[in-house]
Amino acid sequence: MATMQAVMKMAAAPGLTWVETAIPSIGPDDLLLKVRAVSVCGTDLHIRRWDTWATDRVHPPLIVGHEMCGEVVEVGAHVTTAKVGDFVSAESHIVCGVCDQCRTGNAHICRATRILGVDTDGVFAEYVRIPAANAWHNPPDMPWELATLLENFGNAVHTAMAVDIRGKCALVTGCGPVGLMAIAVARAVGARKIIATDISPYRLALAQRMGADLALDPRGDDVAAAVHDATQGLGADVLLEFSGAPAAISQGFRVLRDGGEVALLGIPDRAFEVDWSNALVFKAATIRGIVGRRLWQTWYQMRDLLSSGLVDLRPVVTHRFVLADFEQAMDTMQDGASGKVVMFPHGIPAASQSQYG
Amino acid sequence: MATMQAVMKMAAAPGLTWVETAIPSIGPDDLLLKVRAVSVCGTDLHIRRWDTWATDRVHPPLIVGHEMCGEVVEVGAHVTTAKVGDFVSAESHIVCGVCDQCRTGNAHICRATRILGVDTDGVFAEYVRIPAANAWHNPPDMPWELATLLENFGNAVHTAMAVDIRGKCALVTGCGPVGLMAIAVARAVGARKIIATDISPYRLALAQRMGADLALDPRGDDVAAAVHDATQGLGADVLLEFSGAPAAISQGFRVLRDGGEVALLGIPDRAFEVDWSNALVFKAATIRGIVGRRLWQTWYQMRDLLSSGLVDLRPVVTHRFVLADFEQAMDTMQDGASGKVVMFPHGIPAASQSQYG
Amino acid sequence: MATMQAVMKMAAAPGLTWVETAIPSIGPDDLLLKVRAVSVCGTDLHIRRWDTWATDRVHPPLIVGHEMCGEVVEVGAHVTTAKVGDFVSAESHIVCGVCDQCRTGNAHICRATRILGVDTDGVFAEYVRIPAANAWHNPPDMPWELATLLENFGNAVHTAMAVDIRGKCALVTGCGPVGLMAIAVARAVGARKIIATDISPYRLALAQRMGADLALDPRGDDVAAAVHDATQGLGADVLLEFSGAPAAISQGFRVLRDGGEVALLGIPDRAFEVDWSNALVFKAATIRGIVGRRLWQTWYQMRDLLSSGLVDLRPVVTHRFVLADFEQAMDTMQDGASGKVVMFPHGIPAASQSQYG
Amino acid sequence: MATMQAVMKMAAAPGLTWVETAIPSIGPDDLLLKVRAVSVCGTDLHIRRWDTWATDRVHPPLIVGHEMCGEVVEVGAHVTTAKVGDFVSAESHIVCGVCDQCRTGNAHICRATRILGVDTDGVFAEYVRIPAANAWHNPPDMPWELATLLENFGNAVHTAMAVDIRGKCALVTGCGPVGLMAIAVARAVGARKIIATDISPYRLALAQRMGADLALDPRGDDVAAAVHDATQGLGADVLLEFSGAPAAISQGFRVLRDGGEVALLGIPDRAFEVDWSNALVFKAATIRGIVGRRLWQTWYQMRDLLSSGLVDLRPVVTHRFVLADFEQAMDTMQDGASGKVVMFPHGIPAASQSQYG
Repeated sequence: MATMQAVMKMAAAPGLTWVETAIPSIGPDDLLLKVRAVSVCGTDLHIRRWDTWATDRVHPPLIVGHEMCGEVVEVGAHVTTAKVGDFVSAESHIVCGVCDQCRTGNAHICRATRILGVDTDGVFAEYVRIPAANAWHNPPDMPWELATLLENFGNAVHTAMAVDIRGKCALVTGCGPVGLMAIAVARAVGARKIIATDISPYRLALAQRMGADLALDPRGDDVAAAVHDATQGLGADVLLEFSGAPAAISQGFRVLRDGGEVALLGIPDRAFEVDWSNALVFKAATIRGIVGRRLWQTWYQMRDLLSSGLVDLRPVVTHRFVLADFEQAMDTMQDGASGKVVMFPHGIPAASQSQYG
Repeated sequence: MATMQAVMKMAAAPGLTWVETAIPSIGPDDLLLKVRAVSVCGTDLHIRRWDTWATDRVHPPLIVGHEMCGEVVEVGAHVTTAKVGDFVSAESHIVCGVCDQCRTGNAHICRATRILGVDTDGVFAEYVRIPAANAWHNPPDMPWELATLLENFGNAVHTAMAVDIRGKCALVTGCGPVGLMAIAVARAVGARKIIATDISPYRLALAQRMGADLALDPRGDDVAAAVHDATQGLGADVLLEFSGAPAAISQGFRVLRDGGEVALLGIPDRAFEVDWSNALVFKAATIRGIVGRRLWQTWYQMRDLLSSGLVDLRPVVTHRFVLADFEQAMDTMQDGASGKVVMFPHGIPAASQSQYG
Repeated sequence: MATMQAVMKMAAAPGLTWVETAIPSIGPDDLLLKVRAVSVCGTDLHIRRWDTWATDRVHPPLIVGHEMCGEVVEVGAHVTTAKVGDFVSAESHIVCGVCDQCRTGNAHICRATRILGVDTDGVFAEYVRIPAANAWHNPPDMPWELATLLENFGNAVHTAMAVDIRGKCALVTGCGPVGLMAIAVARAVGARKIIATDISPYRLALAQRMGADLALDPRGDDVAAAVHDATQGLGADVLLEFSGAPAAISQGFRVLRDGGEVALLGIPDRAFEVDWSNALVFKAATIRGIVGRRLWQTWYQMRDLLSSGLVDLRPVVTHRFVLADFEQAMDTMQDGASGKVVMFPHGIPAASQSQYG
Repeated sequence: MATMQAVMKMAAAPGLTWVETAIPSIGPDDLLLKVRAVSVCGTDLHIRRWDTWATDRVHPPLIVGHEMCGEVVEVGAHVTTAKVGDFVSAESHIVCGVCDQCRTGNAHICRATRILGVDTDGVFAEYVRIPAANAWHNPPDMPWELATLLENFGNAVHTAMAVDIRGKCALVTGCGPVGLMAIAVARAVGARKIIATDISPYRLALAQRMGADLALDPRGDDVAAAVHDATQGLGADVLLEFSGAPAAISQGFRVLRDGGEVALLGIPDRAFEVDWSNALVFKAATIRGIVGRRLWQTWYQMRDLLSSGLVDLRPVVTHRFVLADFEQAMDTMQDGASGKVVMFPHGIPAASQSQYG
């Protein structure tokens, strides 16, 4: 039996392990992918840390990771949509296809979603099995380190496209990778002013590089005054929330104009006090919770934004590692002085190192 | 100088006073109305009680009350849209007409709104002055006790029409007058199932009369199970929130299906803990805060729903008083065993007493 | 080899033939259905008549017909969503599932749609093979003659739900079966006034039974005056076009209010002169072409409208035949003095005859 | 009585006359403006030519012209929104403010619209009277030749913002001034590909300067192939129609993808044959007729697009004249080898000549 290296949660306890394990066998509707690049998401850190959420959700042993791109090396017997050699990214949500949500254009909130690296073996490995229905075809020459971003970029596109930002002033709270990518999308689709907030100087610098007009640390900068100045006192038209921080959420709603639009992606890790009357009712805003990516509208939007050059994701990738160095990669992600951290199971391509290094 | 009787907040303290005061003089853009009927709103009770909100907002002396209908008895020099003898209801929000909100179809969230009976003299009086722009013309034969409801009915229509309820299952939390009227609207526009909740048995009975399929007291009835049964376990499609009660809000979001729609009118009287991640983000719902009435779309909708017979508001009016008995009327409103309480400054018409008594 | 009776287009010429042919064998993703009821659509008449459209599109030999319900009698090896004995209706559009339209929630306009009875063998037969993905599960006790209507009812629901008709005045041009069913939907979701037009007295009578306030023959009745009266001269808010008749289309746009909404389902059989400036540009309307049914939103809407009793389709079924009498059935459909004509391959159930006869 | 020079239609016959006439006196709700710049619109050419439309609509004698900017030199007694010295542009639609359209956020389709220079004296004059409600305040340093464009730019913004063009491929048919400005808007709000068509080489060159990726003459270039190539054969996502040419309209619908979006501003000068079934019904598109500018959403959008630099209108202004040379200016506009032709009643400012000349 052929084997591969993989990053695995072995037991219900903190930590991850570098293991040798069997290359997965595939069913008739599956693909086997040789993993070319993977990237680290906050979810992976939760699972490594083994916090309350992870304890409740994850059942070891399990290969972790869900952002990836790779090459098709084996194709299931019933599959007609892919062939060996294709270069694909994975949609990490495996959906049932038969529930009411799936059948009404809302598969992103399928009632039976299973997520790669959370509910089933993930992608931090040399090979991975995915349903053929979860593969998105990329141009063969797309850099691996960008192709692995698509799953996460999809969160950014889904969020930024859920509001009408054309000619508007947007406040983006939280400049982790998704917030950073959303800034680029907001810029591309005609935001006239983008004010970004975060508490990491590293990420604030990246926010400006991605197109924010202002990048502010709410601990020292006067965000309300900045919004006031940018809007002649009228308030931000749009709030894109990626931080999950109660203080940022509260402030975001305070500086939003009445009748504004809000898209919420950031996940607070606990319940918190909300001034419901002023923040939600009297604000007369339209507020949307954002989950995953629309299948597959968001992927088409990504393709079009990237292939046209309207969005350039290269500045988001700040660190590259071989997969074996996953501990160091995840530490880098965790400490906040990073954009997106990419790992390569079969070696870092020369192009990545030189081109955007 | 001619005088009239009115209900006035005389000083910054609890209570209201029955006073004799001057009939208002009008400016060139105003109307003087002989008040035919007024109705009691929760806001009036806040002002009588003199709670924190009232303390911060209201500056005595002031005639209170904002829901009314009446007859035009004097017309300002510049007014071309009304004439003596017209029968009108008042939109209680006096808007500036020149701010960005007013100029972009969002006058209901005008940046300089003043409200009758809150920021300027109100309608619990024999006569009232309103800007001609705030008058809505009624059919001459419309019963007074229905015409005074329009301002409040507008809240219900605005809320229920802000979502797509056609063929859907709606949960209506809070069966005060606005919730009750919203039930009738939801029924009229094709809700297939309406589940209403309140803690007043009187109001739950009215909810059923207005068209609710189920009227439940969440303290004893299993609301989640009722929603489950009505939707084959899928959850409510729509939540219309009128209670302002944190427990009802939390429960409402819990039983809402992912991707559902929410309209929020109820005003919690304090901040409270919200499970933001599950209630708002992961729920992927579209949530709208509702303020006032759309000027004047909501009024046209009201006219059309009422004149066509699609909505019958008569069951909502449960108590009638002469204005001089305002204390008793407001007590009735306050104790929860009522629908809408209507008062008549110039006497209760015979028709009202017999027709719907 | 087992055989069955079927209605077949044998050659590229007018006419249809009653033939004995093999019961279809099924593939791993298919179902074999015992056909319980079928219904006649205009498309079937085109194919029988062998007009230009049919000549260009249809390749004999082919079993015709696409509206049906039936019982699952055999299940393909890969199918997990149906079992023998299930009672289903067929979605007649067989879609590819992999084109951009299918993958973005628009499978009703799939780039590779094949239609039962048009592009592949249809349902006017004792048995039919359909992809399991095309089956919609009905309650076991649903009357067959209503279950066969769903495909066509879906056109009506798709059209009527594509506009906002709540509290509005709608003009429905064309009272064939789809128009008739759309009237019932418009009524159910809160149209305040429905004005229907047709040139068949039989269908105008049915239109009133389905809920039209006025049913007019534009050759004798003054439709413009009727709309004027119903709307205080403002014009119809909504136009639902089912006739495909240039005169009806022109008149419909003329009596539509500026800024109204239009949904177009009727198919003119030739190009015609349009006063584009006044009908489309200056009218400032929002106009939607309607194709098929949204997969599967429309089917869920149908289920909810029917199971709740909001819509009652029984008056639409006016004639019943055994399938062998298909010529008579199609003649009945063609002459305009009918609603929906249903045929039963294995006999007319007693319930149908008595219950709604 | 003070007099001024103006361009007037003196009688119901072709031609315009340079006359000396009284400076208008103003009413209590009006402003008197010293006209700083005006621009020529197709409507003005129709009135000069005295075609069928003009004959039916215009009642001489009348000062023509409706696009302008100017300085407030006198303020009506009731006016509170402007003061002497303010620099404003005029919204040319004088709306009633009291009809159902005006009262429901649709004043652009007011039932009693009167247009400057069409239904009432216009702006091709040294001074003009407008209702104060029709003035839009500009920054004092805005170039006159750009401020006069706003009325027409509003058509472009209204059209381009009526569709969702973010990341999409748009076909723009007709590169007159409105089409040219719409190209710039489409670019600003994230169109990934803009294909423009016209038959004037001069305007096609301007289209590229405004941001079109491709500028094609349908008489020689293969527009369908270009759209095919730009969209991998899927068709244009969006059609923005400014030409009013039947051939362009037909072609536009043919190359539009099923389910696309269309905004129609171009006015065909006669009825024409339309393949309604394929162009409108089966196309399943959403089509909107565009009239005027949304009051005042479009003006806020213009302000934000221009002040942010997202749109640069300078290349659109190609010719400048003193008002006395109106015949030459209108000839220039008419012959197609121009963008926008601007006239200055009180002299061409030095800045205009040097800055963009």
